[in-house]
Amino acid sequence: MATSIMIGLSGGPSTAINATLAGIIRRAAAAPEIDGILGAVHGIQGVLAEEFVDLRPCADEEQLRILRQTPAMAIGSCRKKLVPEEYPQIEEILTRKGIGLFLYVGGNDSMDTVLKLSRYFQERKSPIRVVGVPKTIDNDLPACDHSPGFGSAAKYLYHTMSEIIRDSVIYPVQNVVIAETMGRDSGWLTLSAGLPRFLGKTHPQILAIPEVPFVEEDFLEQIRRIFRQGDRTVVCAVSEGIRDPQGTYVGMAAKSGKSDVFGHQYLSGVGKYLEALVTREIGCKVRSIELNVMQRCAAHLASEQDLREAEAVGAEAVELALRGESGVTLALQRKPGAVYAPEITAVPVERIANQVRNVPEEWFQLEDPQVREEIRAYLLPLIQGEPEQLLDEHGLPKYLELPMEGLRF
Amino acid sequence: MATSIMIGLSGGPSTAINATLAGIIRRAAAAPEIDGILGAVHGIQGVLAEEFVDLRPCADEEQLRILRQTPAMAIGSCRKKLVPEEYPQIEEILTRKGIGLFLYVGGNDSMDTVLKLSRYFQERKSPIRVVGVPKTIDNDLPACDHSPGFGSAAKYLYHTMSEIIRDSVIYPVQNVVIAETMGRDSGWLTLSAGLPRFLGKTHPQILAIPEVPFVEEDFLEQIRRIFRQGDRTVVCAVSEGIRDPQGTYVGMAAKSGKSDVFGHQYLSGVGKYLEALVTREIGCKVRSIELNVMQRCAAHLASEQDLREAEAVGAEAVELALRGESGVTLALQRKPGAVYAPEITAVPVERIANQVRNVPEEWFQLEDPQVREEIRAYLLPLIQGEPEQLLDEHGLPKYLELPMEGLRF
Repeated sequence: MATSIMIGLSGGPSTAINATLAGIIRRAAAAPEIDGILGAVHGIQGVLAEEFVDLRPCADEEQLRILRQTPAMAIGSCRKKLVPEEYPQIEEILTRKGIGLFLYVGGNDSMDTVLKLSRYFQERKSPIRVVGVPKTIDNDLPACDHSPGFGSAAKYLYHTMSEIIRDSVIYPVQNVVIAETMGRDSGWLTLSAGLPRFLGKTHPQILAIPEVPFVEEDFLEQIRRIFRQGDRTVVCAVSEGIRDPQGTYVGMAAKSGKSDVFGHQYLSGVGKYLEALVTREIGCKVRSIELNVMQRCAAHLASEQDLREAEAVGAEAVELALRGESGVTLALQRKPGAVYAPEITAVPVERIANQVRNVPEEWFQLEDPQVREEIRAYLLPLIQGEPEQLLDEHGLPKYLELPMEGLRF
Repeated sequence: MATSIMIGLSGGPSTAINATLAGIIRRAAAAPEIDGILGAVHGIQGVLAEEFVDLRPCADEEQLRILRQTPAMAIGSCRKKLVPEEYPQIEEILTRKGIGLFLYVGGNDSMDTVLKLSRYFQERKSPIRVVGVPKTIDNDLPACDHSPGFGSAAKYLYHTMSEIIRDSVIYPVQNVVIAETMGRDSGWLTLSAGLPRFLGKTHPQILAIPEVPFVEEDFLEQIRRIFRQGDRTVVCAVSEGIRDPQGTYVGMAAKSGKSDVFGHQYLSGVGKYLEALVTREIGCKVRSIELNVMQRCAAHLASEQDLREAEAVGAEAVELALRGESGVTLALQRKPGAVYAPEITAVPVERIANQVRNVPEEWFQLEDPQVREEIRAYLLPLIQGEPEQLLDEHGLPKYLELPMEGLRF
């Protein structure tokens, strides 16, 4: 019996999420059991607002290739925590639209929606199956080796840090450069920014991840020691989420103390805060660089390996839903062995929803050669390969534009 | 009679300056009149400190290709204004090293060094010839169509802004994104950030260049009008150098008023300042993004056209010096006609030193379709082509490392 599939994207963007969407559309279009392929514009919020876009017209190879190389989220996103009062409305709308399969692509928070809806439909004995599809640049989803989207962000960070290092050393003056990465709760992105060092370069000498309490005086002493040992440039990669030993975000105290003064609550990300600290306490030239949204949307630097895995995960989610699974989400694993071999598994969504996977404690000793070797071996396969680019008449990459009310580019 | 050539790099980095260095080394190595090829480490400061590196070992095609794809400045840079007391010392050192040709690569300020030294050597009847080689991402060198380095920066800005736009529109909430570009005195980089709009996209709707006085109330009114007209996301590209009608840098007043408070002088670039202003006055979600050094060092996104021209300009500088010219600098022109055809000319260095070329007044009316067409036609040829990349054993781009004391990567 024919049914329709609906896809929603949720949470923060990544470079690989549209590749997952392409994988879903391609597989769904090939399934004789599926007739309609609908996108919920702005995720679950679009379901509630009944804002949909027909994705079947994208199901040809050229469109799918363009979608795959398009950054961010081609059908929009939302940040919304469902409340129980909304479940019946969602069931009514999906049923009315003939939806039997509902795929939701997102991170830890978005899997909360998958968990809630799959349980509700099960209790109600509704035939609608709900499958979660992972994505997050933060790489902090439990029960997996890594997340789709992370590899491209890590590749961006490797290249950009390598370039920033070369930019930082050119003048014959002592200086400190502080690059602020995303990853509020886990240090995976910051480790990726440290890859030049793990590959044997001098910089970045200091990495600060949220998992390790940050002591300002130790940080300053580390910089002073590096200068004493003769390096002229100190490059640091610092997670936006570092906390002091009391658990307070670094720079928060300074920030909230000034929140009554015009605008100051917006002026101090941790990078800017540490820039001011080093300037005051050490007095050399300091520059902070917020890597900002570029680390999550730099499609021009996507990892081919990441895009391939993201696509495969999308296709596998359709398979899973067609096989009747619900309340599960996919997870990327890595088979043991020297050669990188990823593998897609299905896990119950409660193992992922609302939880965080941290950098393992064994990796906190970043000066340990064994740790460096392990991090290198973990990261390198994820950032490999240049995706082919479809170019427009100006020689610039094509992005997909779907006909949607209220979502213009 | 054989002579030696010395090359110094000066000022801020670009993605193309090492391509110019590669062009110089290749041409110099092919000239039977030239024996030594020396790099002055940290430009004229390295001459005074007698810190040199032998560049002849780089004169094979593989090394030159690696040098060409290496970001920033492979032999370091400096920011130094020469004083007359230093001229005799420089003459003595260059003479002692057997240097007959001195090439200096840099922007407006660095050409001041070329001007001073060439005049001094002429007066002293010294046989040392001094030739300037242009580079600047700001594109503000007079007497030329564009500068080596600008095309790659413009390409970075086009791609990154296109990606930021896709990242900015995904949530169903009104929001403003403010991207801060470099270019303290001229708006060429900001125009490049506006290229998605000039190519027919909705964003960025607001561009603010240093040539046009910036009125905060007009800026806020523009944002309000765009919201009223139905766009949910307003993207702005703003030069770091915008000034109010009195000529004061925007945000400076707020900044200097707070300079006694810990660190605040470091917290307010113009992007952060405008973020606070829009938050206070309009109250929607606002994000500022400082494009920072990435726009000048993103080698992974270099324009092949730019690198080719940068190399050609380097080779031509050697030719010019060998022909006995001194006190001149090279300049890229564009032949008239529909097909882009660059041309290298030589101009007296006094026409370039210490001067700024602004965006022409005819281009201030950015809503005029004719103006948009002209800017598009100006920018597009400069950002074309993907350079081939030499990769290392990890599948990552190779960078050249020369054996230099005090310059480690």
